[in-house]
Amino acid sequence: MTMNFTDRLRQTCVAKKSMLCVGLDPDPAKFPEGIAKTPDGIFQFCKEIIGAVAEYSAAFKPNLAFFEAFGSEGIKALEKTLSIIPKDVIVIADAKRSDIGNTSQKYSEAVFKTWGFDAITVNPLLGKDSVEPFLIYEDKGVFILCLTSNKGAADFQMPNKLYLNIIKNMSEINGKNNCGLVVGATHPEYLKEIRQKANDMPFLIPGVGAQGGDLNSVIENAADSKGLGYIINSSRAIIYASSGKDFADKARENARKTRDEINNLMNK
Amino acid sequence: MTMNFTDRLRQTCVAKKSMLCVGLDPDPAKFPEGIAKTPDGIFQFCKEIIGAVAEYSAAFKPNLAFFEAFGSEGIKALEKTLSIIPKDVIVIADAKRSDIGNTSQKYSEAVFKTWGFDAITVNPLLGKDSVEPFLIYEDKGVFILCLTSNKGAADFQMPNKLYLNIIKNMSEINGKNNCGLVVGATHPEYLKEIRQKANDMPFLIPGVGAQGGDLNSVIENAADSKGLGYIINSSRAIIYASSGKDFADKARENARKTRDEINNLMNK
Repeated sequence: MTMNFTDRLRQTCVAKKSMLCVGLDPDPAKFPEGIAKTPDGIFQFCKEIIGAVAEYSAAFKPNLAFFEAFGSEGIKALEKTLSIIPKDVIVIADAKRSDIGNTSQKYSEAVFKTWGFDAITVNPLLGKDSVEPFLIYEDKGVFILCLTSNKGAADFQMPNKLYLNIIKNMSEINGKNNCGLVVGATHPEYLKEIRQKANDMPFLIPGVGAQGGDLNSVIENAADSKGLGYIINSSRAIIYASSGKDFADKARENARKTRDEINNLMNK
Repeated sequence: MTMNFTDRLRQTCVAKKSMLCVGLDPDPAKFPEGIAKTPDGIFQFCKEIIGAVAEYSAAFKPNLAFFEAFGSEGIKALEKTLSIIPKDVIVIADAKRSDIGNTSQKYSEAVFKTWGFDAITVNPLLGKDSVEPFLIYEDKGVFILCLTSNKGAADFQMPNKLYLNIIKNMSEINGKNNCGLVVGATHPEYLKEIRQKANDMPFLIPGVGAQGGDLNSVIENAADSKGLGYIINSSRAIIYASSGKDFADKARENARKTRDEINNLMNK
C-alpha cells in the first residue's frame, strides 16, 4: 500500500529525529576555495555538502535555478547529485513550477518520473486545474506557495488575504493528502492562522538563517495535530558556513546545531 | 544603442508582416508518424516545424516543460532547437519561472545568457522583487502572467481583480519598457480594460486555436497606441495540424492562414 506524502514526511522526521531540510543552492560566486565554478564543481560541492549533513537532515531541497543556469550540463549535474542522495530523506525539487494543465502534466512528469524527486514546490497562481496534475501521485508531495519569505509577499499574497484563498482552494483538491504549503519563517505572526485554516497540510518553511526568520515563534505555531507536519529549510547559513577548505565541516556543524536547536524548541 | 523590447517586438512584427507566435510544445504522445518519441525526435519535430512556419511567424515560443520531461537530454534538444531558429524572430521561453530575488537572478541568467532567449514568461505571485532580476536587460522581454487562458484563472486572478493589481505593480518596475503581459484570448471581455490600464505594455496572447479564444474580439481590443504591441500564440492548432507525414505542410498552411486571418482583421 502506498503511504500518502503527509504521513511519509512525518515518518521520515521521526525516523531521522530531524525537522531540518537543507537547501542545495550551488552558487559558483559563493563556492569555497578548491571548488571549480563549472557543472563539475556544482556536483562536487553538492556531494561534499550532502555527505557532511545527511546525518542531520530529514530532507534536501535542490534549487533547480542554480543547475539550470549552466544549461543541459547543469541539469546533468543535478541528475548526478540526485543519484547520490541517501534514500532515507525526502528530496524536494525547489522548482516553483506551474502552467496550464497539459503543461503542468509535463513538469510533473519531469520532476517525479524523470528525476524521481519525492516532492516539488508549485506556484498556484494559475489555479486549481494547474496544480492538479502534480497531485496525482499519492506518495509525492506538492508544496504550494502560500506566503513566501521575501518582501514581495506583500504585493499580491497579503492583499485581500490571497494566502487564505490559496489554502481554501488547495484544500479542495487535496483528496490524496499529499498537498502542503510553503510558508516563510519571516512571517511568524501569520503562521498560527495559516495552520488553523490548513488543518494537517505539511509546511515547508524557508527563511530561517540568512533570511532572518525567528525559529522559536515558527516552532510554536507550525505543528500539526500530531506535533509534526513541517520541515524547516536552511540553505545559505549551512552550505556557505565557511568559504575555506573546511566548508563541509562547518556545514556539518551548522546543520547539527540547527537540528538540535529545532528539537530543543519542540520539546520545550 | 540598445532598443527596448517593446519597440523591438513592434519592429519585428512590422518587418515580418506577422503578429503570429508559434508555440513549440513537442509532445511525443502527439508526434506524427516517423518522428521518434525521444529527445532526438523532439529536435527533429521542432526542426521540421520551424522550417515550415518561420516565414509566417514573428515569434517562436518553446515550452520548457516538454523539453524538461526528458531531463538533461531534453534540455540538450532545446539547445539544439534554439540554435536553428532564424535570427529575425523573437524567441520566447515559455517557462513561467519565478522565485525570490537571488534565485530569480539565476533563472534570468539561464534563460537570457546561457540559452540566449529574447523573452520569457514569468509568474508574478512572489511580487516585484521576484520579477526585477528578469528586467535587467532592456532588449529582453518579460511577459508577466496577468490573466491566463485556463479555467483556473477564476480561482485567484479574477477574485478582487488581482489581474489589475498585477498590472499596477508591474508598471511600477517597467522603467526599461521591457515588461509585457500574458493575457489569454479566452477572456476577450477583459482585454479592453487590461489594455487601458497597461498603457503600451506588449501582450502575449495564448488561447486561440485549440483553446477556443475568439480572434476577432482579441484583435479589436489588444492593440497599443501604435496599433501594434501584441503577438498571438497558437501551438496545437498549428504544430499538430496533421498526424500524418504531411504534418509540416499542414503546419505551414495553418500558420499562413492564421497570420493572414490576423492581418485581415487588423486592417478591417
